[in-house]
Formats: sequence, structure tokens, C-alpha cells
Amino acid sequence: MEPFAAVDVIRAKRDGERLSAEQIEWVVDAYTRGVVAEEQMAALAMAIFLNGMDSAETARWTGAMIDSGERLSLHVARPTVDKHSTGGVGDKITLPLAPLVAACGAAVPQLSGRGLGHTGGTLDKLESIPGWRAELSAEEIGRQLAEVGAVVCAATPTLAPADRKLYALRDVTSTVESVPLIASSIMSKKIAEGSGALVLDVKVGSGAFMKTIRQARSLARALVDIGAAHGVATTALLTDMSTPLGSAVGNAVEVVEAVEVLKGGGPADVVELTLALAREMLTLAGLSHVDPAEVLASGEAYETWCRMIHAQGGDPDAELPKPAHVHVVEAPESGVLARLDAYAVGVAAWRLGAGRARKEDPVQLAAGVRCLAKPGDRVERGQPLLELHTDTPEAVPAALDALSGSYDLTQRHNPGAAEGTVLDLIRG
Amino acid sequence: MEPFAAVDVIRAKRDGERLSAEQIEWVVDAYTRGVVAEEQMAALAMAIFLNGMDSAETARWTGAMIDSGERLSLHVARPTVDKHSTGGVGDKITLPLAPLVAACGAAVPQLSGRGLGHTGGTLDKLESIPGWRAELSAEEIGRQLAEVGAVVCAATPTLAPADRKLYALRDVTSTVESVPLIASSIMSKKIAEGSGALVLDVKVGSGAFMKTIRQARSLARALVDIGAAHGVATTALLTDMSTPLGSAVGNAVEVVEAVEVLKGGGPADVVELTLALAREMLTLAGLSHVDPAEVLASGEAYETWCRMIHAQGGDPDAELPKPAHVHVVEAPESGVLARLDAYAVGVAAWRLGAGRARKEDPVQLAAGVRCLAKPGDRVERGQPLLELHTDTPEAVPAALDALSGSYDLTQRHNPGAAEGTVLDLIRG
Repeated sequence: MEPFAAVDVIRAKRDGERLSAEQIEWVVDAYTRGVVAEEQMAALAMAIFLNGMDSAETARWTGAMIDSGERLSLHVARPTVDKHSTGGVGDKITLPLAPLVAACGAAVPQLSGRGLGHTGGTLDKLESIPGWRAELSAEEIGRQLAEVGAVVCAATPTLAPADRKLYALRDVTSTVESVPLIASSIMSKKIAEGSGALVLDVKVGSGAFMKTIRQARSLARALVDIGAAHGVATTALLTDMSTPLGSAVGNAVEVVEAVEVLKGGGPADVVELTLALAREMLTLAGLSHVDPAEVLASGEAYETWCRMIHAQGGDPDAELPKPAHVHVVEAPESGVLARLDAYAVGVAAWRLGAGRARKEDPVQLAAGVRCLAKPGDRVERGQPLLELHTDTPEAVPAALDALSGSYDLTQRHNPGAAEGTVLDLIRG
Repeated sequence: MEPFAAVDVIRAKRDGERLSAEQIEWVVDAYTRGVVAEEQMAALAMAIFLNGMDSAETARWTGAMIDSGERLSLHVARPTVDKHSTGGVGDKITLPLAPLVAACGAAVPQLSGRGLGHTGGTLDKLESIPGWRAELSAEEIGRQLAEVGAVVCAATPTLAPADRKLYALRDVTSTVESVPLIASSIMSKKIAEGSGALVLDVKVGSGAFMKTIRQARSLARALVDIGAAHGVATTALLTDMSTPLGSAVGNAVEVVEAVEVLKGGGPADVVELTLALAREMLTLAGLSHVDPAEVLASGEAYETWCRMIHAQGGDPDAELPKPAHVHVVEAPESGVLARLDAYAVGVAAWRLGAGRARKEDPVQLAAGVRCLAKPGDRVERGQPLLELHTDTPEAVPAALDALSGSYDLTQRHNPGAAEGTVLDLIRG
């Protein structure tokens, strides 16, 4: 005998009431068991979308999704701390960040996903390294964390299965863009992976899920509140996603750029954001005395990267896949690049083959876009602006179509002061 | 290739936009075909519940549901006019009304449903007449309409199949009580049955779906607007359902009361409402010169009743089922009956076996409640107040439980002026 009826829980939220802890725990569990039908959860998700959940309800909802699966126990001596990004264009930050923070003395257990739509996935990027393996057992994760200090791998299917089921449902019922549902989805997976602390990179702008700083702040607050309710120290950074991060957007091409950063070079914005996130992670891990810039400069982060890749079967020195075709977009006139739209570049890379439309699609490891100028840079007429990489040249026209109107060249000398990458910080 | 994606239609309504005619026609059709999944329609129904549909959208939605099936063509010489009630306790009005209006010269094609929950169904009531048959073919409906002038039978499954599917979904997703969804459900079936005009009896009060006059007026307006948009002359009466209609609540017991009315007797409120609805129906049918009170008094309505029952295999003179058990509730003190709650009496009759909880359940033909006093009547201590009829005496305690607190006896001489049964009238 079930303690509640689905219609009563739906009606309560439909009528703007708060759901009780017992109602939330039951409905998520009963949905996972198939007792609450897909159409009932769809109606509830829409009612939540339109009438909201407060922070106590959202924390309970997250807890119920965690309880639908197992919670990893990471037995490591070092403090554990993880990072999660809400997704952006050219967002390869996990690649330099995880080994850097590990080299600074913390343990970084990063369970990641694959890309869908115009933002890439960390696992897709790493899979461009020959031999590298995304799927690890819980035991392998624990061992690598103890030995290397960093692991970036696929989330095991036993973590928050309710979230997996609910996410697929939200995707087909237009109930994705709800702050409490997004926040509980992110945090249920991250808390279930067992990290002691968490830094969130909440992206804002055309290439991000959250288009305005107000939306991003609201999501950041919800995420931080859930962390606090579940005893996981959580900080959120709001960072700019109006233009791609760094120069490279794709898979192999982003690994190349990440390695440049680990070797002490790379684009300034990628370095800046990597260090900003590292500092927050180290603070939460009780290692605020360590300066990540020094560790990066010392080469220790790059060494940890090599060990991390090697531990998962990859060869950090192997040559990465090269595209069969490169198409160059030249500047149509001279001027200062005033704008380069993240969303347009993300869609172009996706159409070139770097991303997938459905989760069962393959990706082209060598596909993507290289941005040869960044906003603020002066370019001359005919100078290469963008490089489109693909194994399927027939995709180029659709990519160019996506890029139409995606950048502005201005004759003014100062097209407006460039903002820093980090826009705001929200602590628990 | 489908012209729309379900997620886009859901998102538009979720975001408070108007749906276009093309979107509405597509989504209802695609849902009927199974291309739009149950969970997608559930999310859309909740979005409609919370964000509404305007009268143009609601008319289109109704049209799309009509188009999901066939529309009956009634080839009769007389003007056709039908009545629909939103459902009440003791609402046997169709039984005297259909033959009365037919006897006045119109043709009444009433396709009805069965009861669910605390309100009874017209077909369940008529099935207490030995031999009477609810299921007729379209051809039989046409023939009986031409020969007798009135037919009350089951809606054929080919009428508005989208409504049938959607109603079952709304029932399990707490999306029933939405004015545009209720109004389009009612009107799609009624317009599909092919009547040229329609009078709606919108019930208001504890025993009705609409508890307040404001809700009822809003539903009435929506119904009348849909009728106008589809060229069906429509009038709505708002009528009182705070107390049961007449004395009898159940199946056979209501047929007995209806026959009393047809023979010139019966409770005053049943007679009053029957005549009020008949007058509106005759007006819409262009027969406003005929006085239904005269026709009722002449015995012609009763003759038409007998022919109508006979045409569907029933014996109008047969003895009706009697209950195995009768339990009498006596007045605990002397006084004037100030209130007798319709909902409580409806639930009691349901629990005694007159109604069903699930649509596949059977009903007891002899079960129900007889109200031996009406609000305003003086009763003496120990005088019978209510009679509970059932074949399953073990159901009596649950029925008595439903009746607890359902009536008030007052010592005042005038407990407030009784309102008439008809509260308001809304014309197209």
C-alpha cells in the first residue's frame, strides 16, 4: 500500500502548495519504481516548472534523487573537492584544473558527462587521446584518486538513477529550464559521487544555459543552498560565456589547448578561469595556503596530467586526431573584433561533427572551430579569423550558416572594456 | 514529417503564449495518432491548466477534438436541440425533459454518459428499466429521432475519440478542473452528435463540479462561446446544486420520480427546472410559441416517454428493481430543515452502491437515497428524514458517515428565503 496518491501530490504543487518531505521522498522513489507513471511525473514537472519549489523542497528533492541510487564512499587521505560547470562553448577547464588541484594536494573525483547540443562534453574531449578510457569501476576510481589525486571519468549508472530517468522525461516535455529541477539534477549526481566540497562554474551568456546574470545568480544560489543542506561545502562562480573560452572549440583541439595551459602557456582567459576555480577549490579543501599559479608554473600540474591520462590507458604523448578538412574564414575588412558569439561558434562546431544531436550519436574527435582572434584583437582584412575543422566537408555550409552574423568588426579603437571572465562569486 | 515538434508547442503554452490554430490542430491530432506521447500531453495539459487558453484557442481545441472522430448527420425534419448537465446529485432532469421537448415538436438527440464518483449517470438510471438498451447504432439513433422525437443513448465511440483519450489522461494527472479543458471536452462530444442547438445546465454548489457561482459563470461563458464559434446556438443556465434535486438520488428511484413528473406530479424543483430548460430549448429550436407546461399537463410528454423507452427495448410499465435493505434516518429533534447538503447525499448514494468508483465497476440499480424532507420543510422529532436503499446493508455505516453533519435543523420559523433553482442564464 502506497502512502500517497500521485494525483494528490500533483494537485498540491499545481495549486501552489509546498510539498512535504514525505511527499517528495515518496514521489521520487515511486517514480523510480514505476509506480508513478511517466505522464504523472510530466504533469508534476510542469507544475514545479510553473509554481516552483523553495529551497527546503529542492534540498529534499535532491536527497530523494541521491537515495534512488548509491552514494560513493571515497576513502582517500587527502581532502576531496570537485568542480562542475553548467556548460559552455570551449569549456575545457576541467582538463587543466583537475590535475592542477591534485598537484596542489587535494583529491579531485570528477564524474562527467558527454556533450549534447551546442556545448561539448569533457569525456568526448578526453576520448580523442588514443587509448584513454572513460568507464571506470568504483574501485578503480578510488585507487586512481589515492595514487594520482585526480580522476575524470564517466558517472556510474548507479548514481542517482532517478535523475537519469527524470532528465530524459524533462527533455521531451519542455520542463528542462527550471531552477529547482536543474539544481537538484546537478547536485544529486555531484553529492552522490562523494566529494567533500564542490565549486560550481555557472556560465552566463549566449553560449550558456543561463542567458542573463539574474537567472545565473538564481541557479547559483539554489546550488549553493542544496550543498549546504547536504553538508557539502559549496561555492559558485558566475563566469562569462558570451564568447568562447580560449581559442579551441571541439574535442582534440581543446585537449591541445589544455595541454598548452598545463605547460605554462595557453589563452589568458583559460588560465585566468582555471586559477580562479583552483583557488576556490583549494580554499574549500583547507589548502588556501597553496598558490596554484606557482604549482602550474612548476610543471607539477602537467606531470599529474600525464599520470592521470596514463592511469586510464591513454598516452599523453600520442598524436591527436587531425581533421580531414580545414576551412578558413577570413576577416572581410580590417578592424577590431568587438564581439564573437559563443552560441554561434558552439552550433558551428556541433554541425561540423564535434557534438551530437541525440545521445546515441558518435562525435568526430577532430572536428571543431579554432578562433584565431578574440574580442579586443585587431585584425586586418583577409587575415584568418576562424578555422573550421571537420572530417565531413559537406557540413561546412551549415556551419558557416550558423556563424553568419556571429561577429562584429569595429573601426573604433576601444570597443568597450573587456570584462573579466569571473563575474561574481556566491558562497554557501 | 510532422509540421511541429511537441516540445515547441508545450514550451509556447508553458511560457504563456497563445497557441496557433495550426499548433492546436496538430497537437490534438498527433496525440490521437500516438505521435505526441502521453507524458507530453500531460505536460501540455498542466501548462494549459496553469496558463489557460483564450476563447479562440478553446474553440480550436474543441474543433480539433471533434475532427478526431466523426460528426453525426441527423437527417430529421424537426429542429434538433439537446441539453447537457455538468452533473449534480439527483439530476434526473433528462428523463422528463427529452420526451417533453419532443412532445412540443423538437427532436432531442441526447447522447449521454455513465456516472463516475458522487454524481449519477443518465444511462445507469435508465438501465434500471427492464429490457432498456443504451447502445444504439447511428442508424437506430436517426430512425428513433424521426419516429419518436427523442433518444437518450450511449455516445458512440467514434465521437471525439481524442476527448476520450485526453479525459483518461487528465484524470490521472490532476488536470481535470480547468475551464478550457472541461468546456472543450463537453462541447466536442455535444457538437459531434450533430444537434443544431444546445442548452447547458451548469450546476453550482457543493454537489456540483463548480462550487462557486463565479467558477460556474466562467465555465458557462466558455461553453456558450465554443457553441457560437461552431455555429451551434447555445444557452447556459446556472442552477442550484447545494441540495439534491427532487427527493430521489440513485437509479431506479430517480426513474420513479421522473415518471411522477411526466404524469403531472413530482417535486416542485424538478418540475421547475424541467420547464425552465424546456423553454430555453424550445426558444433555440424556434418553437417559443409552444408552452411546455401545457404539454406536460396534457399527458403527451408521458406518452412520448413510453414510446421512447419502448423503442429502446424497455417496458415503461415494468416494475423497477427494489432494494434488499432500507435504512431510515430519523430527525433527531423537531425543527425546520435549514440545509441538506448535496455532496454528502451524493456520496452516501454512491457508497450505498448507486454509483461507481472506477468506470468498469457495476452499479446497483435499486441503491440510492430518498430525501423525505427538503430545505424549508418542518419536521418533527423521530420523523423519517432520509431513506437509504441498498442491496448490500454492510454499506450503510459508510453512507451514514458521509451524511454526518450534512443537514441542519433550526428552531427559527424562517431559515432564510429559498432561492429558486435557476440562478442565472447566459446566452451566446
